[in-house]
Amino acid sequence: MKALVFQGPGRTAWQEVPDPDIKDAADAIVRVDAVTICGTDLHIIKGDVPEVEPGRVLGHEAVGTVVETGGDVRSVRPGDRVLISCISACGRCRFCREGRYGQCRGGGGWVLGHTIDGTQAEYVRVPFADLSVYALPNTVDSFDAVLLADIFPTSYEVGVLNGGVGPGDTVVVVGAGPIGLAAIATARLYSPGRVVVVDLAESRLAAARKLGADATAGADEGPEQLIEDLTDGLGADVVIEAVGVPEAFEMCTRMVRPGGRVANIGVHGKPAVLHLEDLWIKDVTITTGLVDTSSTPMLLRMMAAGRLTSAELITHRFELGEMEQAYEVFGRAAETGAVKVALGGPQHTAVSVPDAPAPDAR
Amino acid sequence: MKALVFQGPGRTAWQEVPDPDIKDAADAIVRVDAVTICGTDLHIIKGDVPEVEPGRVLGHEAVGTVVETGGDVRSVRPGDRVLISCISACGRCRFCREGRYGQCRGGGGWVLGHTIDGTQAEYVRVPFADLSVYALPNTVDSFDAVLLADIFPTSYEVGVLNGGVGPGDTVVVVGAGPIGLAAIATARLYSPGRVVVVDLAESRLAAARKLGADATAGADEGPEQLIEDLTDGLGADVVIEAVGVPEAFEMCTRMVRPGGRVANIGVHGKPAVLHLEDLWIKDVTITTGLVDTSSTPMLLRMMAAGRLTSAELITHRFELGEMEQAYEVFGRAAETGAVKVALGGPQHTAVSVPDAPAPDAR
Amino acid sequence: MKALVFQGPGRTAWQEVPDPDIKDAADAIVRVDAVTICGTDLHIIKGDVPEVEPGRVLGHEAVGTVVETGGDVRSVRPGDRVLISCISACGRCRFCREGRYGQCRGGGGWVLGHTIDGTQAEYVRVPFADLSVYALPNTVDSFDAVLLADIFPTSYEVGVLNGGVGPGDTVVVVGAGPIGLAAIATARLYSPGRVVVVDLAESRLAAARKLGADATAGADEGPEQLIEDLTDGLGADVVIEAVGVPEAFEMCTRMVRPGGRVANIGVHGKPAVLHLEDLWIKDVTITTGLVDTSSTPMLLRMMAAGRLTSAELITHRFELGEMEQAYEVFGRAAETGAVKVALGGPQHTAVSVPDAPAPDAR
Amino acid sequence: MKALVFQGPGRTAWQEVPDPDIKDAADAIVRVDAVTICGTDLHIIKGDVPEVEPGRVLGHEAVGTVVETGGDVRSVRPGDRVLISCISACGRCRFCREGRYGQCRGGGGWVLGHTIDGTQAEYVRVPFADLSVYALPNTVDSFDAVLLADIFPTSYEVGVLNGGVGPGDTVVVVGAGPIGLAAIATARLYSPGRVVVVDLAESRLAAARKLGADATAGADEGPEQLIEDLTDGLGADVVIEAVGVPEAFEMCTRMVRPGGRVANIGVHGKPAVLHLEDLWIKDVTITTGLVDTSSTPMLLRMMAAGRLTSAELITHRFELGEMEQAYEVFGRAAETGAVKVALGGPQHTAVSVPDAPAPDAR
Repeated sequence: MKALVFQGPGRTAWQEVPDPDIKDAADAIVRVDAVTICGTDLHIIKGDVPEVEPGRVLGHEAVGTVVETGGDVRSVRPGDRVLISCISACGRCRFCREGRYGQCRGGGGWVLGHTIDGTQAEYVRVPFADLSVYALPNTVDSFDAVLLADIFPTSYEVGVLNGGVGPGDTVVVVGAGPIGLAAIATARLYSPGRVVVVDLAESRLAAARKLGADATAGADEGPEQLIEDLTDGLGADVVIEAVGVPEAFEMCTRMVRPGGRVANIGVHGKPAVLHLEDLWIKDVTITTGLVDTSSTPMLLRMMAAGRLTSAELITHRFELGEMEQAYEVFGRAAETGAVKVALGGPQHTAVSVPDAPAPDAR
Repeated sequence: MKALVFQGPGRTAWQEVPDPDIKDAADAIVRVDAVTICGTDLHIIKGDVPEVEPGRVLGHEAVGTVVETGGDVRSVRPGDRVLISCISACGRCRFCREGRYGQCRGGGGWVLGHTIDGTQAEYVRVPFADLSVYALPNTVDSFDAVLLADIFPTSYEVGVLNGGVGPGDTVVVVGAGPIGLAAIATARLYSPGRVVVVDLAESRLAAARKLGADATAGADEGPEQLIEDLTDGLGADVVIEAVGVPEAFEMCTRMVRPGGRVANIGVHGKPAVLHLEDLWIKDVTITTGLVDTSSTPMLLRMMAAGRLTSAELITHRFELGEMEQAYEVFGRAAETGAVKVALGGPQHTAVSVPDAPAPDAR
Repeated sequence: MKALVFQGPGRTAWQEVPDPDIKDAADAIVRVDAVTICGTDLHIIKGDVPEVEPGRVLGHEAVGTVVETGGDVRSVRPGDRVLISCISACGRCRFCREGRYGQCRGGGGWVLGHTIDGTQAEYVRVPFADLSVYALPNTVDSFDAVLLADIFPTSYEVGVLNGGVGPGDTVVVVGAGPIGLAAIATARLYSPGRVVVVDLAESRLAAARKLGADATAGADEGPEQLIEDLTDGLGADVVIEAVGVPEAFEMCTRMVRPGGRVANIGVHGKPAVLHLEDLWIKDVTITTGLVDTSSTPMLLRMMAAGRLTSAELITHRFELGEMEQAYEVFGRAAETGAVKVALGGPQHTAVSVPDAPAPDAR
Repeated sequence: MKALVFQGPGRTAWQEVPDPDIKDAADAIVRVDAVTICGTDLHIIKGDVPEVEPGRVLGHEAVGTVVETGGDVRSVRPGDRVLISCISACGRCRFCREGRYGQCRGGGGWVLGHTIDGTQAEYVRVPFADLSVYALPNTVDSFDAVLLADIFPTSYEVGVLNGGVGPGDTVVVVGAGPIGLAAIATARLYSPGRVVVVDLAESRLAAARKLGADATAGADEGPEQLIEDLTDGLGADVVIEAVGVPEAFEMCTRMVRPGGRVANIGVHGKPAVLHLEDLWIKDVTITTGLVDTSSTPMLLRMMAAGRLTSAELITHRFELGEMEQAYEVFGRAAETGAVKVALGGPQHTAVSVPDAPAPDAR
């Protein structure tokens, strides 16, 4: 089959590789129908994620069709159209038992396109399939569902739930890339009083406004003053970091009100300064986290009910074979205006899913 | 002044009574600008609430203008336009310290129009004014705000919060009177997957659909089967009782899924049968409650932001002097289609509120 | 092998039956080293649990040694000394994913000694072994651990956690049978201000005092007045029902304070009267539940640390072959003073458990 | 009267000052019967807290007898023996309504011995007396109760509750000064599996062991390795910072397990480095906070029930007039072994408190 292979820092190729096969009774082999590229993939290619070895097939987000399952797999079967979660879960370790799949100690966690071959390929082997793929109802489009693989649950769990967003809150999202934009959509599930978005790029702020941001501010236009003005000097109830650089995180800790919460989603490569001399007295809560995708069934129900869509988030579409071109467009997002790029054939909704259990049923 | 006086079972009159005056340093005297009638008032008039004595001025919901304050009152001053909460709070007892104002042991709780004179009058004395009235921003209309006195916080706190409504949930509201209809609006703050409303009257179900109910069912049309069908036989995540009769409560306990919640808002006069032989194994949570109005500041912010309105809820308007006529229309709701009736002069928004603190500020 | 077989209402026998064998790749076969009898077993024998068919081996609590495992079992292996939980968990359904194993829809839940053969036998087949048995550290005695199969997690999850016991609380436990007594021990993990125990039998109240009850009252000696006196008329913060009859449940709802919680553990066969005419205004929360045993790993850590023991709870010991005699003693608990009876050979601690993972490790 | 007056950096005197009098109707004047010194007082004297002006009477912890009350005070009256909380609460602002008294915007918060005259004096004026002093039951000794003014609620709320300590947890307390030692006592209310204490001074570690620490480690003896060994490499569930220097905080963030919590209590004067490059993926929660003293009524009930004492915490006793000597001993804690020093006359328990409400009653 064809796949996007990491060949060492700075180099990848869409090339022929052997088809995956079942290695463990809990595996499923899935044909990839829709797939996207994540900012993390760009970091891997730069060489920032040393545990990814040359030869690895990249990608951790996809929707596809099950073609084969190991003997232990009970929840899906060949022919099922499924979401492939970016997180795999052994289901047995103490973290999986708490629904904290991202911290799985039993061989799961973030493995696809990281420590095992991933989804940017024609086929992918998914370990622990019972807890790592989700049958899709017919009413959900694959190119909507593919955003449930990572950015929706990530923004919801690590941003909105960790941040404790509630009705009436003033929520600030720092960073309007794919995750920050998804955080606007998922924060709105809790009816905040207003969502304010901060970014350097006006094009991203425009996208934020389309997704429902009540106010936006350039990162260099005194966003802290704006928050102060909007909240009578108190600060924001919840601040979500969706950038991953120290300056952004530090700005978040200056914007939060006494008793408020800073939820970090950003992937950081360097330490930040934590101004405990100001913060110790402020009753602030700071959270970090890798997504667990434990919210995926609920988000899928919301999508099936038409309350969560990929509109404004998928900006570019390609055929699967145009992988290198898609990377090129996504990699120059500042110029191309790309938010998420999606790849896949036009046949993706035609798969028949006989007797697919409704998401409520189990 | 004129006021609506309870004269014993079955009798009331809009009559001349002495003006209220400050009795305690924490009191405020408020001129009533907008007021409504509650189903509880009808119960009182029938004689169902024996602690209400003849001679009592009824009413526990209003918006008005402060005309005088006692020496301890620090939060409002004459000229302020304020919401009068149905619950007064001493602020000192163990329950008030927990924000459980409805259970106040220090002289507050539900007292207005119950154990002291109420708001269906030209003026009213409000005890513990600092914690019992709320300054209104100019952007909030008095005839929207008056619904914050009781039905919005009641449906929100006792129904939605006690019920733990969350994104994606199937929520059933049994009873589409004013409280049940307000529960649709406040449940939607948490993005449930669907809200299903059950009532006997088609006119109320129509109102429910206008307020955003996703499905409705006549109470005599097998609503339990509908819920079962919608949820693959599992039952609803949250069921809110907003009627106050045993049959309605018992229906709620049959509709809830394993692990779900039944939140009772209804005012009951008789015991219900609790089928513990079925429920003991079902992981069900049942809650009861009187409103605390601790959520009022948040709901007021939501209203100021345009996210909560009285639309569809106030069906009839009267001048204050038309109190008896308003009671007559409200008392025959089945025929008149009344949900909430509101009374008050047209001048209610003209009150100048100099330097009113923004709701965020404190 | 020998096993205790239900032969229809009123009849059981300790008789020869075929050895169990692996039926599913997730099964384990366990040799029973320590086992107890539950009050539920007595109900089954009376014929109160119609889904238990004649021929069924009873029992849902045990400690034993794994002798064989199916191909999917990853967490334990032959030779491991394990706790057999009264609840089996498929690990895949929506309830298992939330840790609500008692409501498992995938073939688990309470199945042992109920819908499949149970633990009162020389060997037992345990389905979904990975999530249904727990490797025991060497420091934990089998006859302590056997109480982790049911009564400790049941009293903790369904009584203490559902009841929300916290430091300083006044906790009332109604019913001082095995579950009620275990509730004293597990409630004390949260440092309540006092635990008051109510029962009809003075011998049980004496056992309660030994387990740390701060006060006890005969059910016919006006326990409600005692609670009122102890709490300045307010009522208890938490009331735990551990009997299973309407009168006990109704007493609980009279003893609880405004804002308090009633946690039902009792297995009920009849409906109770819920006095909503009193309770609607009291902010009361009532919970029911079947145990999930999701707390078992934590309780096992507490037992390994010496902070939870079977002392005072196991009153009688028998050899496994004395099953009928043990039933006879347990069935006449009022006369024999039996709380829990335990059966098993003296060799139970001698099993070598090489490389058993410490409970913290996963 | 005599009082300990701050006279600018490095200088204080026990000197004659005017008696305090009622300035506001919510004030109470309290005669000081028992008082202690806080580490924060030493910081003030060094000049580290610039908002404390020369001439200020220091001290924010005391037990005393009410001698006069303003017209608004309803909860206490002259003759009542009371705890004076380190936090005053207006009871009206948004933070007080949430029980977050430490963040009071209405004139309260930490004001005593900070922005108004404090408790290290013969008499003190306490603002907002209704929410800032607590009547003491006769069974509670003043020299136990004085620790409820600050260190017990601080360690409980900011350490144990923010840290989410639960049964079975591995809890690490970094810093065994008065707050750290109090954190051992209050953490034990939740039955952690083990409490490990880290400090530089062996004398403090010895005190920690007396208070129930299960293990101790010198800060320079590789405490991180100890935690790793105790937890199979996972890290601690909860780490409490009770020092206030960057190195201690940073150690805490290295000791916490994935999914765990770091609760900062220490008063910091400098920023710390937050290693987000390691922590972003670890699901860690970090909290800061000033005490609210909202838990004081519960802690007082626990003390009245004999479940919380000052044993091992008050190491030195002085007469009130020996204030300078007490400071001298407390300031050289490393040599003197002082934990808390307490001052006051021997008559403190003889005060008659007629009709004092029991702590449960309101």
